[in-house]
Amino acid sequence: MSSQGKFKKDKEIIADYEAQVKEIRTQLVEQFKCLEQQSESRLQLLQDLQEFFRRKAEIELEYSRSLEKLAERFSSKIRSSREHQFKKDQHLLSPVNCWYLVLTQTRRESRDHATLNDIFMNNVIVRLSQISEDVIRLFKKSKEIGLQMHEELLKVTNELYTVMKTYHMYHAESISAESKLKEAEKQEEKQFNKSGDISVNLLRHEDRPQRRSSVKKIEKMKEKRQAKYSENKLKCTKARNDYLLNLAATNAAVSKYYIHDVSDLIDCCDLGFHASLARTFRTYLSAEYNLETSRHEGLDIIENAVDNLDARSDKHTIMDMCNQVFCPPLKFEFQPHMGDEVCQVSAQQPVQTELLMRYHQLQSRLATLKIENEEVRKTLDATMQTLQDMLTVEDFDVSDAFQHSRSTESVKSAASETYMSKINIAKRRANQQETEMFYFTKFKEYLNGSNLITKLQAKHDLLKQTLGEGERAECGTTRPPCLPPKPQKMRRPRPLSVYNHKLFNGNMETFIKVLADSKGNPAQHSQRINRSPRLPFFSTFLVAVFPRG
Amino acid sequence: MSSQGKFKKDKEIIADYEAQVKEIRTQLVEQFKCLEQQSESRLQLLQDLQEFFRRKAEIELEYSRSLEKLAERFSSKIRSSREHQFKKDQHLLSPVNCWYLVLTQTRRESRDHATLNDIFMNNVIVRLSQISEDVIRLFKKSKEIGLQMHEELLKVTNELYTVMKTYHMYHAESISAESKLKEAEKQEEKQFNKSGDISVNLLRHEDRPQRRSSVKKIEKMKEKRQAKYSENKLKCTKARNDYLLNLAATNAAVSKYYIHDVSDLIDCCDLGFHASLARTFRTYLSAEYNLETSRHEGLDIIENAVDNLDARSDKHTIMDMCNQVFCPPLKFEFQPHMGDEVCQVSAQQPVQTELLMRYHQLQSRLATLKIENEEVRKTLDATMQTLQDMLTVEDFDVSDAFQHSRSTESVKSAASETYMSKINIAKRRANQQETEMFYFTKFKEYLNGSNLITKLQAKHDLLKQTLGEGERAECGTTRPPCLPPKPQKMRRPRPLSVYNHKLFNGNMETFIKVLADSKGNPAQHSQRINRSPRLPFFSTFLVAVFPRG
Repeated sequence: MSSQGKFKKDKEIIADYEAQVKEIRTQLVEQFKCLEQQSESRLQLLQDLQEFFRRKAEIELEYSRSLEKLAERFSSKIRSSREHQFKKDQHLLSPVNCWYLVLTQTRRESRDHATLNDIFMNNVIVRLSQISEDVIRLFKKSKEIGLQMHEELLKVTNELYTVMKTYHMYHAESISAESKLKEAEKQEEKQFNKSGDISVNLLRHEDRPQRRSSVKKIEKMKEKRQAKYSENKLKCTKARNDYLLNLAATNAAVSKYYIHDVSDLIDCCDLGFHASLARTFRTYLSAEYNLETSRHEGLDIIENAVDNLDARSDKHTIMDMCNQVFCPPLKFEFQPHMGDEVCQVSAQQPVQTELLMRYHQLQSRLATLKIENEEVRKTLDATMQTLQDMLTVEDFDVSDAFQHSRSTESVKSAASETYMSKINIAKRRANQQETEMFYFTKFKEYLNGSNLITKLQAKHDLLKQTLGEGERAECGTTRPPCLPPKPQKMRRPRPLSVYNHKLFNGNMETFIKVLADSKGNPAQHSQRINRSPRLPFFSTFLVAVFPRG
Repeated sequence: MSSQGKFKKDKEIIADYEAQVKEIRTQLVEQFKCLEQQSESRLQLLQDLQEFFRRKAEIELEYSRSLEKLAERFSSKIRSSREHQFKKDQHLLSPVNCWYLVLTQTRRESRDHATLNDIFMNNVIVRLSQISEDVIRLFKKSKEIGLQMHEELLKVTNELYTVMKTYHMYHAESISAESKLKEAEKQEEKQFNKSGDISVNLLRHEDRPQRRSSVKKIEKMKEKRQAKYSENKLKCTKARNDYLLNLAATNAAVSKYYIHDVSDLIDCCDLGFHASLARTFRTYLSAEYNLETSRHEGLDIIENAVDNLDARSDKHTIMDMCNQVFCPPLKFEFQPHMGDEVCQVSAQQPVQTELLMRYHQLQSRLATLKIENEEVRKTLDATMQTLQDMLTVEDFDVSDAFQHSRSTESVKSAASETYMSKINIAKRRANQQETEMFYFTKFKEYLNGSNLITKLQAKHDLLKQTLGEGERAECGTTRPPCLPPKPQKMRRPRPLSVYNHKLFNGNMETFIKVLADSKGNPAQHSQRINRSPRLPFFSTFLVAVFPRG
């Protein structure tokens, strides 16, 4: 008992215990606060998201309406202009087709953004408000369960407090019984020592009966105190055991709460929050992805139309639209004068020699002209190739302007400078127009040359045919006949249908045949086809059928 | 000459010819008109496109600004709320991360649409105006060339007219010379017949010299007329030959013009138009496709964040953010009273029998409770599974709302009805809340059961340990020792660092070890882990380390 000073006093133990329980209680309150704050944050987030999507929906609708108005403005213009006959067939031309598809795409984008508005307003926002309801309801229910958990914890700690106090009480009693027992034992010992003195001082005989009863008394007291001590010690042992068992139970319960139950409590608050929010975001994403897919499909249609931008086919279409204007006229026929029965070049003497001379002159003149014109044509081809290279330069990729990750801001200037800097444009255009000018100069030169060649060739061919016949005629008789042996039949005039049917319309083969008959046999592809890879179909076809001289 | 009535008169031939030439001239004029109209149509188209892109650029800018304003509104709110300590770490939570990414995407879209505006204004429109210049310039130049072609044609037809007139003249002279010759021949014949009469009437001899000079005269005239006729006939033949050769040349020139030159003329007008327009459209398409790619990248980032919406990790984050609040408290330690040296359950007689009985009672009670609680757990698991199925139903696909091609209009109603019809929502939600209610009821039941089991198990385990030691102690001595052989060491208190370090922060292994030491060895994964596949990580981890009773 000398070390009593080292032991905690009862009051200290109780105070420590109460402090420990108070700390736990404080934590429990803070835990609720934390969960409440979390729920409030979620509600705030959900409210922000609702506000965001409400406003985004409005923006989408504004955008949709602007696009619709824009498309309608031009569509109505097109509708009114269609009343003019000339404009009616314009949509057959490939650039106009692209333009109409751009308008179609604008309407499609308008519709898609309206759909976005609809999905945001009637789906995403509805989901978000439902999640808000869920958060409130689940927090309420979870708090209910949390309170139950907390009550349980407090009940357990209260029980621990009670059994601890009981242990203290019984232990105190046990100590007191022990000290009383020890006191009795001391007295007994004292008495025992006195007995020793008695055997020494046997003289005082009259004291003996007094002493015997005193020893008995002391022994009785000691026995009583021993019994009391044992009883108290057992009570104390049981109380300690109870305290220790409750301690284990309390620690297990507290541990379970902190390790499992708090986590479960948070799970209760969370129940479905992430899943529902994910579905909401996925609805938003689905809408945006679908908008994108739709946009992409529309753009692909336009791109296809741009791939099909075709000057050749457009030329064909224009000539078809104005077929009366572009259809070759009837040939000039030989008109015999006053029943002149000769309708051919006559190559009998005396004109034969002269014609023959003329024929040879034509032949050599043509050879020279063709060589000269071929040179011009080569220059023309090269110039056209240069022009084509300029005109088809792939300068339309603007992806640099959309590189966010790399250089987030100042996108504008980049887009403008790289692709359309004024100096580059001016340079390019000056160069292009110079080449163009040269092309036209050379084209005129070529045109003049080929015009002359065409006429001389026609004369040359006719003379060749005539002289060939004349030579054969000479074999029969030396005398030049005044009249040809028999007047040749007039060439049949080309069928009038050429005038009236639309170019290629329905029966292209017939048309080719008619044209071919009026000129000669279809010949090999002229070299001119190679002049320009973009030479339109119609002219290619004609050149194929009627090669140039 | 009897059939002279059948022949065309000169005037008729001339009139026919002039009509034919006039028709060609009309066609040439019409061809110019057609090309001019075509150029005008192109200019109109280019003007429309410019207007369209100017307005579209405006719309894109408005849209961009609206989006920017929208994003900024919430971003500034976030910035200001970050000043609060609690809100500061909110961005670590997965739903908040999604929300921030939605805002980032909004800013990205804003930037992209601003870029679209820039490209339309500073690239597409500039290109279009350049093409307009080109169309005007090329039409001018082409018309110049066309006029040259037309002049050439008129020159050729004029030449033909001249040679035809010459042929007519010489043929007329030839006819006249022929008729004069025939007249002379007639006279000669008449004279010859007269000579026959002379030989019959030789009597009139005095007439002879007169007749002879007359015959001579006639013969001379006939010869003269014969010469004249031959001369004229040759002239006529030459003129006819010239006419025929020029006819061939003219027809060849006309044919060349209609078949090649007109086509070339249109090519001149077209020069580069389709290519330049295609590049312009491709610039527009490149911008739109790049916008789309950028959008898509942004959406993918959001989708990734949505995939990573994770209640478990968020719970971990929240507990980490409030680590003071969620950290398990110190264990309640045994407080020995007044230097009580016994700090363990004592199981010596006379309490041994009683403790043993209590141990067996606990054992059988626990067995029953565990079976009962396991049943509750199974119901709980099944209910959670049902809830999970409801909460993760894939109801977010809105692609039907974007099916233009199939059902162009009335998209709105479709989107609203299919996904978010009010009846379906109400039904689904009622069902969900009912299941939720049932889940909470069962959860409370389970919680009560497990709380009781935890406490009883702790007592049971302590008794088992004590009695086990007691039994072993009994082997040594039958006499229950008043004091245990040697006071057991107090368990060392858990290090204070558990309070102060952040949960898992930095040194998770140490933390696990500390927790494990305070409870016992880490045990097998409890079955409860399987209860919910979405059980958060933190609780899973704890459950793994500290299995429930």
